[in-house]
Amino acid sequence: MQKEILIKFGSKVKEFRLDRNLSQEELAYKANLHRTYIGMIERGEKNITLLNIEKIAKALAINIHELFQNIGE
Amino acid sequence: MQKEILIKFGSKVKEFRLDRNLSQEELAYKANLHRTYIGMIERGEKNITLLNIEKIAKALAINIHELFQNIGE
Repeated sequence: MQKEILIKFGSKVKEFRLDRNLSQEELAYKANLHRTYIGMIERGEKNITLLNIEKIAKALAINIHELFQNIGE
Repeated sequence: MQKEILIKFGSKVKEFRLDRNLSQEELAYKANLHRTYIGMIERGEKNITLLNIEKIAKALAINIHELFQNIGE
């Protein structure tokens, strides 16, 4: 099920975002992305690109590989 | 320099590919991607998507987070 990775990635983004008590809007602002885009990423509805993965990781103040820990095994 | 992440990612793909004595063509075949696309990824010329990152990781028989170890720090 190819899309599984998008869903797992989205859950990780949401997990880190909530850990930092950020709303989708606040994360979007920090990452310089649109709020609705963050929502779609978290629901696994977007095949995110590497440049946007980096933006989100930086906004969450984590390394990119942390977003992929235990997913895509 | 936003594109830096693409260049670093591409070098990691090349590193793992060479470790496994695979040609770009063989990796492309395993990942069900085009050979020229693999070349562009390795040179950092493509903003790769997560679904293709997963294809490449599977073809290299590694976890996605290994592709991001020590990059995007």
